[in-house]
Amino acid sequence: GVLGSGDFARSLAVRLVCSGFKVVVGSRNPKRKASLFPAAAEVTFQAEAVKKADVIFVAIFREHYSTLCDLADVLAGKILVDVSNNTEINHHKESNAEYLASLFPACTVVKGFNVVSAWTLQSGARDGNKQVLICSNNQEAKRTVAEIAQVMGFTPVDMGCMSSACEIENIPLRLLPAWKIPIFLALGLFLCFFTYNLIRQVIHPYIREQKNKLYKIPIEVVNTTLPCVSYVMLSLVYLPGVLAACSQLYYGTKYRRFPDWLDQWLQHRKQIGLLSFFCAALHAVYSLCLPMRRSHRYLLIETAVKQAVEKKMTIWVEEEVWRMEIYISVGIIALGLLSLLAITSLPSIANSLNWREFSFIQ
Amino acid sequence: GVLGSGDFARSLAVRLVCSGFKVVVGSRNPKRKASLFPAAAEVTFQAEAVKKADVIFVAIFREHYSTLCDLADVLAGKILVDVSNNTEINHHKESNAEYLASLFPACTVVKGFNVVSAWTLQSGARDGNKQVLICSNNQEAKRTVAEIAQVMGFTPVDMGCMSSACEIENIPLRLLPAWKIPIFLALGLFLCFFTYNLIRQVIHPYIREQKNKLYKIPIEVVNTTLPCVSYVMLSLVYLPGVLAACSQLYYGTKYRRFPDWLDQWLQHRKQIGLLSFFCAALHAVYSLCLPMRRSHRYLLIETAVKQAVEKKMTIWVEEEVWRMEIYISVGIIALGLLSLLAITSLPSIANSLNWREFSFIQ
Amino acid sequence: GVLGSGDFARSLAVRLVCSGFKVVVGSRNPKRKASLFPAAAEVTFQAEAVKKADVIFVAIFREHYSTLCDLADVLAGKILVDVSNNTEINHHKESNAEYLASLFPACTVVKGFNVVSAWTLQSGARDGNKQVLICSNNQEAKRTVAEIAQVMGFTPVDMGCMSSACEIENIPLRLLPAWKIPIFLALGLFLCFFTYNLIRQVIHPYIREQKNKLYKIPIEVVNTTLPCVSYVMLSLVYLPGVLAACSQLYYGTKYRRFPDWLDQWLQHRKQIGLLSFFCAALHAVYSLCLPMRRSHRYLLIETAVKQAVEKKMTIWVEEEVWRMEIYISVGIIALGLLSLLAITSLPSIANSLNWREFSFIQ
Repeated sequence: GVLGSGDFARSLAVRLVCSGFKVVVGSRNPKRKASLFPAAAEVTFQAEAVKKADVIFVAIFREHYSTLCDLADVLAGKILVDVSNNTEINHHKESNAEYLASLFPACTVVKGFNVVSAWTLQSGARDGNKQVLICSNNQEAKRTVAEIAQVMGFTPVDMGCMSSACEIENIPLRLLPAWKIPIFLALGLFLCFFTYNLIRQVIHPYIREQKNKLYKIPIEVVNTTLPCVSYVMLSLVYLPGVLAACSQLYYGTKYRRFPDWLDQWLQHRKQIGLLSFFCAALHAVYSLCLPMRRSHRYLLIETAVKQAVEKKMTIWVEEEVWRMEIYISVGIIALGLLSLLAITSLPSIANSLNWREFSFIQ
Repeated sequence: GVLGSGDFARSLAVRLVCSGFKVVVGSRNPKRKASLFPAAAEVTFQAEAVKKADVIFVAIFREHYSTLCDLADVLAGKILVDVSNNTEINHHKESNAEYLASLFPACTVVKGFNVVSAWTLQSGARDGNKQVLICSNNQEAKRTVAEIAQVMGFTPVDMGCMSSACEIENIPLRLLPAWKIPIFLALGLFLCFFTYNLIRQVIHPYIREQKNKLYKIPIEVVNTTLPCVSYVMLSLVYLPGVLAACSQLYYGTKYRRFPDWLDQWLQHRKQIGLLSFFCAALHAVYSLCLPMRRSHRYLLIETAVKQAVEKKMTIWVEEEVWRMEIYISVGIIALGLLSLLAITSLPSIANSLNWREFSFIQ
Repeated sequence: GVLGSGDFARSLAVRLVCSGFKVVVGSRNPKRKASLFPAAAEVTFQAEAVKKADVIFVAIFREHYSTLCDLADVLAGKILVDVSNNTEINHHKESNAEYLASLFPACTVVKGFNVVSAWTLQSGARDGNKQVLICSNNQEAKRTVAEIAQVMGFTPVDMGCMSSACEIENIPLRLLPAWKIPIFLALGLFLCFFTYNLIRQVIHPYIREQKNKLYKIPIEVVNTTLPCVSYVMLSLVYLPGVLAACSQLYYGTKYRRFPDWLDQWLQHRKQIGLLSFFCAALHAVYSLCLPMRRSHRYLLIETAVKQAVEKKMTIWVEEEVWRMEIYISVGIIALGLLSLLAITSLPSIANSLNWREFSFIQ
């Protein structure tokens, strides 16, 4: 049974019909809404639909849950699947599923399907994320809903009891939570180093020698800033592991929880590392662009003209040559190695490595 | 039961035996063929094999289906699994599975396993695509075959009733169908812009000033063409979304289907976007190669020599310098952002994002 | 039931409890260990735990298996799941699971869960590799354990009978086995070509003309070596396919096994190809870095000065210009095509291609 006639209810009905289930849709205005649903689904009044179904998907907004209270009698003993989502994280004190359960104590409430979009439901689960997170206090009901999800082509994942509902409802609302701290960290570091390099390369020569080097800002100053950020970020990837080891040695046990800040830090290592790689890659591209610049060409010609006019033929400085060759060659090798680390952090590759291989590459 | 003694029949028998099923193989010449099958599989005459089995995999070509007609009596009531493929898309009017069903109306026909290669069957489903698309008009039979697929280590996907058989049979024959239009589009745009740039940069100077600039064709003309293609393609990614929104506003409903051309366009956005990124990345590489060219070096030396001979020391043009610095720096940032879009279109990464994160990145 | 109180036993108990199973833990010192396990799991003496459980996870080291011999009577008829790992490949003559089975002939032993880390168990199977490889001589027991794995959120993979246990136990110990030969091959080729280029570009000019070109070693010599390695590796990707076809034509059958060396070679093609791409990509980066070098600038200025002093204005060599333009343009196109090959070898993309598409791209 499906209660509701919105987008999600429709897609759910389509998918259930396609998977071979008998579907009955409960609507407050079945005549007007019938045309929206597939022909094989029976569209009828809510009370009638509830009577005919054992498992009922409640595809209506939390605000309208209370309108179902008239149906409390017919709903008793049925399995209610709460598929709702919120518009804000932790908007309500209790999760939608717990609220539904409190309204209908005689029903078994299961949270699930809220992480799946109407689009995924309708187009089938062939592509995209196929996980359906399910939780409930009743093992039997949970297993029933998990089986329905499996027949529909999804991969049910057991998330334990009802207290996880809040967590499950927050999933579709999260916005790259693991990236927030690392990105602000990278921006902060970038600003610091950028200011320092701006003062050193542009403001200082201007004040001291009145030389106008403003043209260096968009490329050269950025280019000297990026590797600094990259190095600091890379060291921040490996530092917490050392701190964690020290903490374990100090307390003499590995069963003691790390302090919260260290735990958070350990969990953000992957993102910090990827940002470090991103900065390093940008630095490589910026460096490669240096000889393309008009300013580079002008300086080159200027030097050549000066040399020719002064009839000075030898400008070869062995030390300068070696320095640059070694800089560049070490830089390329470092970038190559960092690329390997970045590639192994792709989910599909990381999954094909065992623990020993992963730590070997790290 | 398996009917047939080709590559696929053999691999199927091997896999079924390994998964713990009792397998009986039906062949017209069991003695000669027995050596090809694993020892645990019983190889016998077709009629005998059919009698002993409940689920029969028909691993023979469509052309030979009619040779099974003698077995119609023993086959009655059994589940026939059609695993066949065609050599051409829509070669026959009806799908192989529907043809088989019409030949044996007393049997339940299930389409499945045709998307799996003999190689995948034999080497086990540990790597590679593990989906087995199944369809049938009989829910019971479909579920039985789905369970067999699951025990064999595959992920059965319910594709609905027999009318989907045609679609399933076309899957192993498709050749990147989603890429055809975007690639021809990119080639067309490339040709147009290439001709325009060729006329402007090579033919026009030759006619006007008799200057031979043919050497510009392989790199410079291509390099000015690529970003034009990339920009037009990128705008073609975002345009249909706007058109779709306009159409929804105009008709005042989101339940009206878009016209076919717009629907097609909306579905090709990902491919168009990736080709746009590919052109942008090639443009970056071409641009970085510019200072490596012999011609670049010659022009540089020529200018330097001219300046030295004319004793003209100042060639620094502030505007030119700034232009180039800003061009390059904006170009790098644009490429960096486009890379993010390209990376999030990798299936394994797209699957780990929720809808809100995906649209945020877009 | 879980026997043992180590990290793995604890994580296993946590996960089983979360998945809704009734868990009883057997320990030799239940009072001291009880605090390590979740409250919902009953921690008691080994004999008692075994009596209450039907499926018993043996989470203790192989060395201590014999300490369980006192429990042989109560264990009789139960399903024992061997989750153990070794510290070395093929350390013992027989696999741990077979050893366990020999100690308790009255039990049904199933090998499984050893490829899953304690961390994955505890954090749930939402991310990471979710496959659990299972093998046993008893189909019933195997199916029971597979169902438990499925309810726990893992994907059970049937690996056949107990003789596969050795293979399964080696999986967490392997260290990129498919990469060893290709990497040594690449290193060997690199050394050979590097020596040749070193002699040609540095040692020979030094001996003949006493010119010090040592500065060329870190970049120029490496840069001429990389494409040689890349080309030879690429040809080694396509050669074994030709040899295999020849062998099939010669013997007139495709059912004859290839000789071992050819089989090995065929299976390493993907890794050889990726290393070839890696060398080509490094070559591209090295080449792009060439104009950044101080030595490049010095040589340029030197030439300009010489030309200016000698009042020689024309240095444009049409052939040289064309050569370089064509070199670079062909190089970019080759790298672009090789990138496509490399991208389609990413697991998540390869899985979404059918066989025809994959061979078309190749």
